[in-house]
Amino acid sequence: MIRVAVVGAAGRMGTSVVQALEEADDMTLSLAVDGRDGLEGITSDNTDVAVEFTVPQASLDNVLTLVGRGVDLVVGTTGWTDEGLDQVRQALEQAPREHQSVFIAPNFAISAVLADHFAAKAAEYFTSAEVIELHHPDKVDAPSGTAIHTAQAIGKARRQAGLGPMPDGTQGAADSRGQVIDGVHVHAVRLQGLNAHEEVLLGNSGEQLSIRADSFDRSSFMPGVLLAVRTIASGSHPGLTVGLDRFLDL
Amino acid sequence: MIRVAVVGAAGRMGTSVVQALEEADDMTLSLAVDGRDGLEGITSDNTDVAVEFTVPQASLDNVLTLVGRGVDLVVGTTGWTDEGLDQVRQALEQAPREHQSVFIAPNFAISAVLADHFAAKAAEYFTSAEVIELHHPDKVDAPSGTAIHTAQAIGKARRQAGLGPMPDGTQGAADSRGQVIDGVHVHAVRLQGLNAHEEVLLGNSGEQLSIRADSFDRSSFMPGVLLAVRTIASGSHPGLTVGLDRFLDL
Amino acid sequence: MIRVAVVGAAGRMGTSVVQALEEADDMTLSLAVDGRDGLEGITSDNTDVAVEFTVPQASLDNVLTLVGRGVDLVVGTTGWTDEGLDQVRQALEQAPREHQSVFIAPNFAISAVLADHFAAKAAEYFTSAEVIELHHPDKVDAPSGTAIHTAQAIGKARRQAGLGPMPDGTQGAADSRGQVIDGVHVHAVRLQGLNAHEEVLLGNSGEQLSIRADSFDRSSFMPGVLLAVRTIASGSHPGLTVGLDRFLDL
Amino acid sequence: MIRVAVVGAAGRMGTSVVQALEEADDMTLSLAVDGRDGLEGITSDNTDVAVEFTVPQASLDNVLTLVGRGVDLVVGTTGWTDEGLDQVRQALEQAPREHQSVFIAPNFAISAVLADHFAAKAAEYFTSAEVIELHHPDKVDAPSGTAIHTAQAIGKARRQAGLGPMPDGTQGAADSRGQVIDGVHVHAVRLQGLNAHEEVLLGNSGEQLSIRADSFDRSSFMPGVLLAVRTIASGSHPGLTVGLDRFLDL
Repeated sequence: MIRVAVVGAAGRMGTSVVQALEEADDMTLSLAVDGRDGLEGITSDNTDVAVEFTVPQASLDNVLTLVGRGVDLVVGTTGWTDEGLDQVRQALEQAPREHQSVFIAPNFAISAVLADHFAAKAAEYFTSAEVIELHHPDKVDAPSGTAIHTAQAIGKARRQAGLGPMPDGTQGAADSRGQVIDGVHVHAVRLQGLNAHEEVLLGNSGEQLSIRADSFDRSSFMPGVLLAVRTIASGSHPGLTVGLDRFLDL
Repeated sequence: MIRVAVVGAAGRMGTSVVQALEEADDMTLSLAVDGRDGLEGITSDNTDVAVEFTVPQASLDNVLTLVGRGVDLVVGTTGWTDEGLDQVRQALEQAPREHQSVFIAPNFAISAVLADHFAAKAAEYFTSAEVIELHHPDKVDAPSGTAIHTAQAIGKARRQAGLGPMPDGTQGAADSRGQVIDGVHVHAVRLQGLNAHEEVLLGNSGEQLSIRADSFDRSSFMPGVLLAVRTIASGSHPGLTVGLDRFLDL
Repeated sequence: MIRVAVVGAAGRMGTSVVQALEEADDMTLSLAVDGRDGLEGITSDNTDVAVEFTVPQASLDNVLTLVGRGVDLVVGTTGWTDEGLDQVRQALEQAPREHQSVFIAPNFAISAVLADHFAAKAAEYFTSAEVIELHHPDKVDAPSGTAIHTAQAIGKARRQAGLGPMPDGTQGAADSRGQVIDGVHVHAVRLQGLNAHEEVLLGNSGEQLSIRADSFDRSSFMPGVLLAVRTIASGSHPGLTVGLDRFLDL
Repeated sequence: MIRVAVVGAAGRMGTSVVQALEEADDMTLSLAVDGRDGLEGITSDNTDVAVEFTVPQASLDNVLTLVGRGVDLVVGTTGWTDEGLDQVRQALEQAPREHQSVFIAPNFAISAVLADHFAAKAAEYFTSAEVIELHHPDKVDAPSGTAIHTAQAIGKARRQAGLGPMPDGTQGAADSRGQVIDGVHVHAVRLQGLNAHEEVLLGNSGEQLSIRADSFDRSSFMPGVLLAVRTIASGSHPGLTVGLDRFLDL
């Protein structure tokens, strides 16, 4: 039985994690805490893995504190910088236990992580590729961070395969052609009723490959969180690991 | 048996029309001609309806000539101006036969005409609506004329229903949000392998309606052309009619 | 203030209806009941309209009982047969009050109702049409009542237009070809993560029209339920009315 | 110069292969034959690789005959059974030349091969998976060979991951639920206007991954056929190889 603490348990993601833990047969909730004080109770005596979903300003401190206490972590808070990641790596080198682990992911939806991975894998075999992301209208940024990542991964795969620019008779001028990221056109739809969705279209003469990830609600992130907890608890990935694709057999 | 002449028979659309006529049980090809001279042979003695697919510079003269000879017309050439349409109306008033008819359509794909019509009909019942058009990369303009028409029809329906602006947390700034036409965001994808496609997304809290028209090749226009020929030959629409939606029972 | 009773109040739909009633300014919840015994308390003295969301085996009896007691009904239970509808009509003729009303709808989601309506409108213009419905895996019946209704509407439109059977080289034998309803193949997908979705595909040579309705959660049904309660309570539709499209401007 | 014979040269695929061979710089057409008698002329003296696109009833005999005559094969006919494949393996063991090769693929479209591969890769991470294939109405078999292959690959991946049966409240009875192949429901749509399409839907609580391959015309298969001919002619894959994914960098 994996003993799991939740940090940021009162937040929207944290609430879902607590519920998912209660439904998981192989895990038990050790502590559910919020705020700096809450961290006090989490130790390697009562917790195997802490799941951290807080805010960018608090996350680094939370992680460093818990690493220093010998606790492994699965972190879903976004906004990590390269400097922050380096601090985590250093903390892990001086950690009290051997083989301590921290896992950080910007996206725990397995469908989104797989779509991103498959799009990059397929990109070298297609003449054209474009990305459409669709979200609820309250989302402030456009395009989404995931869509930017997918476009960059496609652009990189095309360069490595020696592919040139995609054919485009409109010559890039029109507003309707979207934002160009690393040579890949990215379109952002904002529609009442939607949550978080991404579609990648890849085309050759006479054929199209479409890969689409739909995240209908927050429950979509839980399988990825539980998978990360299980993998970290197994001890198979000591040190810092970034990105859920690292835990998938791809 | 409806006797049909094809004007512009050597062009890409004309070739498809000739073939479609040969496969239609209720029609027979009277003449297949190209260029100005070809028109000479077409009269009301040998032809019930002439199908005209030529070029914008030639189409008006062709239509006026054949109207003057007592021949009804189905016209697929694009680029008609309001002045050109007025000249056709005047010619029809002085036509040799009573109840002569001319039909002009910018798009003969029934799926595209229906998608455009249904999107406008549905628009008043939804909080959000966006249009995505997808075409082969050789297309020069973006967005497509059909997508502009659809966006304008949605915008008009929303105004008539008293709906305000759609919710959009991105506040219109980002390139990825597409071109805004009459308050409706329009996105244009250009992808090798595609032909001509349009998708309209309409959203309410908890639900989405998607209407999509795919035109895979030129054969997609033939059912619309044959429908127009049959309707014009029936004499049910004397005078000038513009737009295939006028012949559909909607 | 419209006094509304909910029959099947402990079910998933019933729970949402109770909540929607509490948020509606012009309605009040008179009773929320479950099971046969529960019906006893509902009379025309305390209730204007009963909303009935139970199971196919119970719904007909519930409706006949309440009609006999002078209560108008909005019924969302699926699985109605022509015989059942006839029994409701007969009960209404002998009902204690004049102008009593029953409204039965296979689906209250506006996107689904529009998709169904548009599919029937479009059907006469296409050589082929098939229906795919996709639902969560807990749904007991397959295909959905909405999909059956859509298939029947397409079949009827095709007959009225004099269209023959659709082309099908597989000659109807294979299991994979789905269930044939009124000449229309209907496919039912059951997938974890989905809620209630329907896609109608219509095809001609070279073109396809796709109409898709996605209901992501039960909140999508509530505006339709409240619209039906208001319309029935207004007395504008005495007798039996089937389908939310009857209450829309189409 | 690779000398290639085409068996089934008058069929739709065969015609396209003959044309593609004529456009390929590194290949020459040795013979183009149809029917049993036609095979007589093909020998290892005049042909390096025979491309076989016939019908399921004829294909096994054709392959065994040509293997026995020392000719390598690229086979695109669908409907192969495990017994048939075993017979080919046995024939290859007793073949007249050393290192003889037979390549059989259920699909030569790169988008379809990638969709099949990605679906199998993703399957272990999802609670539910279903396959929808959509084809032109002249297709005789249903479901398609590719869809069967995809379903089997998903079924295998699920077994290897220790996943149990998918949740299904309909308990498998209804016709609309499609054909169950290796525990995976497969649906076949036949629609005028379509060519060859496959969509795989994978679902978890709150999320969906959709992978779709569209082959709009036969030109989409030719790069895969030529790649297979070149790979087989190179001698790099002696014995029986099944599936174009074996020749891709995945």
